Formats: sequence, structure tokens, C-alpha cells
Amino acid sequence: METTCQSEFAPVSLLEKISRVDFEQAASRISADTIITPLLPHSRDSGDKKIWLKPECLQPLGSFKIRAAANLAECRASGLSLKIATASAGNFAQGLALAARRRGLELTVHVPDNASSAKIAALKRLGVSLKVHSFEGWWQIMTTRETGSDDGMFFHPVCEPEVIVGNGTVGRELVSQLSDIDTVLVPYGGGGLISGVALALRAYGSKARIIAVEVETSTPLSAALQAGEPTTVDRLPSFVDGIGSVRVIDAMWPLVRALVDDVIVVSLKEIESAIRAAAARNALVLEGAAGAALAAALSDRCQGKRVACILSGGNIGLDELVRILTSG
Amino acid sequence: METTCQSEFAPVSLLEKISRVDFEQAASRISADTIITPLLPHSRDSGDKKIWLKPECLQPLGSFKIRAAANLAECRASGLSLKIATASAGNFAQGLALAARRRGLELTVHVPDNASSAKIAALKRLGVSLKVHSFEGWWQIMTTRETGSDDGMFFHPVCEPEVIVGNGTVGRELVSQLSDIDTVLVPYGGGGLISGVALALRAYGSKARIIAVEVETSTPLSAALQAGEPTTVDRLPSFVDGIGSVRVIDAMWPLVRALVDDVIVVSLKEIESAIRAAAARNALVLEGAAGAALAAALSDRCQGKRVACILSGGNIGLDELVRILTSG
Repeated sequence: METTCQSEFAPVSLLEKISRVDFEQAASRISADTIITPLLPHSRDSGDKKIWLKPECLQPLGSFKIRAAANLAECRASGLSLKIATASAGNFAQGLALAARRRGLELTVHVPDNASSAKIAALKRLGVSLKVHSFEGWWQIMTTRETGSDDGMFFHPVCEPEVIVGNGTVGRELVSQLSDIDTVLVPYGGGGLISGVALALRAYGSKARIIAVEVETSTPLSAALQAGEPTTVDRLPSFVDGIGSVRVIDAMWPLVRALVDDVIVVSLKEIESAIRAAAARNALVLEGAAGAALAAALSDRCQGKRVACILSGGNIGLDELVRILTSG
Repeated sequence: METTCQSEFAPVSLLEKISRVDFEQAASRISADTIITPLLPHSRDSGDKKIWLKPECLQPLGSFKIRAAANLAECRASGLSLKIATASAGNFAQGLALAARRRGLELTVHVPDNASSAKIAALKRLGVSLKVHSFEGWWQIMTTRETGSDDGMFFHPVCEPEVIVGNGTVGRELVSQLSDIDTVLVPYGGGGLISGVALALRAYGSKARIIAVEVETSTPLSAALQAGEPTTVDRLPSFVDGIGSVRVIDAMWPLVRALVDDVIVVSLKEIESAIRAAAARNALVLEGAAGAALAAALSDRCQGKRVACILSGGNIGLDELVRILTSG
């Protein structure tokens, strides 16, 4: 696989180009920045369905995105100009901020105005320049890579080969931890996590079904699967800030369509219940997107018998967490 | 090391008898029942002190005690009478309950009346017979092994060689994850966890200082270290139910005195602050005893520069957790 800088990267090309060696190299590149997350049984009785959790919320900075950021930085950020930029709701930006600080790079992060206060505070602690946009303005940057300012080379949080392969290291670990999974549930944000995980499972010979999870407040993937192409949908703000855009990223669509077997949409109430279950039974704090994956596993709409949930992150404000813990 | 049933087990004998092979065998015995917990960096800036967390709260049933219970059951529970008993505040009993259920054994658990409702509920779900005692009555059972009823062979939650070695598998993992720790902080309950961890660190050649952590509401180890022998102390009830007895178990004292380098006493307020930090920065739910270990690491009384905290468990009622999260 090409790992040099590509201005015109077509994600679907990864279907042909990628193999185990890419994930092995990425795993070794990111090993100093990340942990190998354990696979935890979730104990709630669910008939003959068994559920395991892959708690990426335990990663440094509280999300899987450190994997992608570390892989990207390690591949590309040396020898470049001192200024780089990204657009992210927070988790990817935090990882990149850490990587940038270690390399003396100046990072500008473009955030949507619904990003959680916890994520904004974390970015400020990491010393980046912040630019806040309306959600629509931010999404415009995500789709065009045009930030409207002279803030250096733009690193897309989803649509870069190193990002997708870095995310895929989650899938590489998963197959080594449990060989006979039949279903993997992945929160659907920009499509980078599910694509990486699905590519890794394929590369390592797993036949598990790959199910995307969306929250009822915005379901662009469901809409795209129904329409046969990306289509713009409405979006209601909620505490689930890590997933739920207004449209599947067009460049990602051919890859996502090839890799995703189905989608499950969960309600905010189901996510809240899953967050309570993870706290009570697995000692884990989940953000909304991670709660969505567990909620999908616990719902009757998930037909799998051996189900793994990718718990994407744990960055939720304590006030929000308390609200959810007391709303049962 | 002897692993057959011993009615007159002297824990101090482990100092002579134990070696790496005991921990290797135990690790292999318990591998189907437990996870290898990751070692997580704790991100709060603390000058030049670095803190790592060993989150045993992620184990099945939410505590390190599954390690000891699985090791004990695997070594001894086959070919015995169908009735067994233990005395435990909950976590060890839960592990033993799971092991007993798998082997068709009938388990009676003697609990103190301050055990958390979460732990009592979990024991009920696992189908054991429960007998509730005053804390003093329960402690009497812990020191005499006499339950006052005909409920089968008694398995002590601390003072059994298989329990101490099972606990020690935490230390075995720790040295493989981080070779140059200078300080290990362990909550002090019955002394079984810290003894196991210390024996394992010694067996694997670590020179780390072993620091016990007590909560201000009952400090039997501090008192024993000062008096040169176990002495009975006062005890105030609190949300920290996993540690804090009225007296160091006499049989454990020679072993503990040989292995523990120092003790740090933390306040309830410090523990609450540590529980909030673990939730906000590491996506972990801690019970009081685990919070005590992190509280000690964060305090100025801990002089180490590379510090590992054993986070013993995560079994805390959600009401109590909410109280702590909102009391900052």
C-alpha cells in the first residue's frame, strides 16, 4: 500500500491494495502511543447471545482515534512544514495534537460547535489552535478539505489511508482475541473506523458480519443504503456527538458500501441504558457513540450469537454521565 | 509449593516456598476465567511522577478476586463434598460462586452487613446462600474460620496459598508490562492482594517498593506497623467497603511485615477525587478501595517517580457513584 502523501486518495482503492502486512506495520508503528485493549465479556444475560466489548475508551486520550493519529503522524508528519490542520469533533484531533506536540508541529483544529466541553477542554490542554464552526460549516471542511484559512497541510480525520489502516489495528487485535465472532458492531461516524475494522477482519480471514450502528437523531448511512448513494439527511443535536453526520462522505461511499453488511439504528434511550449497563457491569465510562454499539448488541435487531462491540470512546462530560446514570 | 488442602496454613512459609513457576502455573490455570488487564497511563499531570493503572475492575465480576477464586477452585474444589463456604465482603465470594456453579458445588457466603447493595445483588444473581453478620461477627469468622453452621468446607478469602498465588498473577502481569516501576500501590484489605503481588514482584526480580494503602476510617496495618504486632483498631463505616478491617489477620502478619515497605493513609475526600479522575480521564468506574490506590499515587505522600496502582475493583452502586461524581 502507498503510504506517501496523496492529495487524491480514493478510499475504495484499499480493497485491492491492502493486506495483513499493512496492519502489522501499523500495529508496530503505534505501539508506543497506544494500548492493546482487552476483550471483555459483557455479563448481562441475553438468552443465547454472547456479547464482548472492545473498550477503546481505555486508550490514551479516551478513544480509538489515537491509533489513526499515531499511524498518520509516524508515516507523514516528519520533514513537513511546521503547520498542520485537521477537522475533528475532538477525539482524532486530540491524538494528532499529542503526536504533533511530540514532533514540534503547530496544529490548528477545526471543531463543530456541538463538540462536548470535555473534548474542547482536552484540546486546549494539548495546546492547539482552535477554530469553531457551525456544524454545517464544519461538515463543509470535512467534505472539501478547504478550511478557508492558511493553516498548513490538511489531515483528514477519516479519509486518509493511514487513518483507515490505523483504525484497522482494532480489528487485527479482535481476531487474535476471539476467533469465532459472528458479528461486529461499529459506531458509524465518518466511516473510517468501520472500514478499517472490516478491512482488517477480511485480511485476517474472519467471516464476521460487519454492522454499522447509527443513532436515531441522524441516519445518513441508512439513507445512503436505501437510496443507493449518499444523500443529505436531517440531524438533531444530542449528547451523542461522536457519530451522526448529515451525509455519508462521498469519497468513502464505495468503500463503505463494499464492506458494511447492515446497519442498526438505536434510540437515545437505548444508548443511555447501554451506558448504565457498561458502568454497572463492566466498570466502563462510555461516550454516546460507544454506548450506541453496545445498545445495538443488546437489542433484538442484532441477530448475532457471538457479538463484539467496538466501544469507540469514553469522552463524555461528567455532568452528562450523571444525567444518564440517574435517568434509568 | 504445596497446593493440597491445609488446615494449618502459615502464610509466611510462602516466603521460602514460592517461585516463578507457581505464578506461571496459576496464570495458566485461571486463563479461561480471567482477562490480562492492560496497564493504562493516568494522564493527570503530577510533576515528574508518572502513574499507571492496573484496572482489575475490568475483570469478570468486577474485581481481582476472580483470579484467586478461579485458582482455588481449579486446585481444590474437585472431588470434595458438595458444600463449601466462605466469608467475604462480596468480590471473592462472587468469583467463588461462579467457579462453584460451574462445578455443581453448593456455596454459602457469610457477608458483613456493610457490604454494598451492588455486591449483595450480584451474589444473589449467582445463586448462593447468603448469611449476613454484624461486621464484628463477620470478622470473627475471618479470624477463626468458624462459621457457626454446618455449611461445608471453609475457604478463606485471604489466607489460603492458592488465593495468595492467584492474586500474585496481577504482579506477574505488571512486571511484564512495565519493567522499571519503582513503586506499587496496593489497597490493604485482608493482606492477600498485597502479599501475592509482592511475592510475584520478588520472584520476577523487581525491586519496586510495595506500599499498602489504607483509608482514614480504619487503619489496622498502620497500627500494626507502629505497634510491631497486630492490634485492634476502631473502624468507621463508609462507602469504602473493600478495605478497612479492625485488625490485621494475625496469621498474615509475619508475611505482610516481611513484604510491605510502607503504608499510605488516604482520606475519603481524596478517594472521591481519585474516583472522579479515573472516570474523567481513564473511562473507569472504581470502587472505594481502588480509588484509594489512585488517591495515594496522586498524593504528595507517594514519593515514587514511576508508580503503578492496583485498582482492585469496580463494584460500586450507581447511586454512590453519582454522589461521588457530583461532590467535586
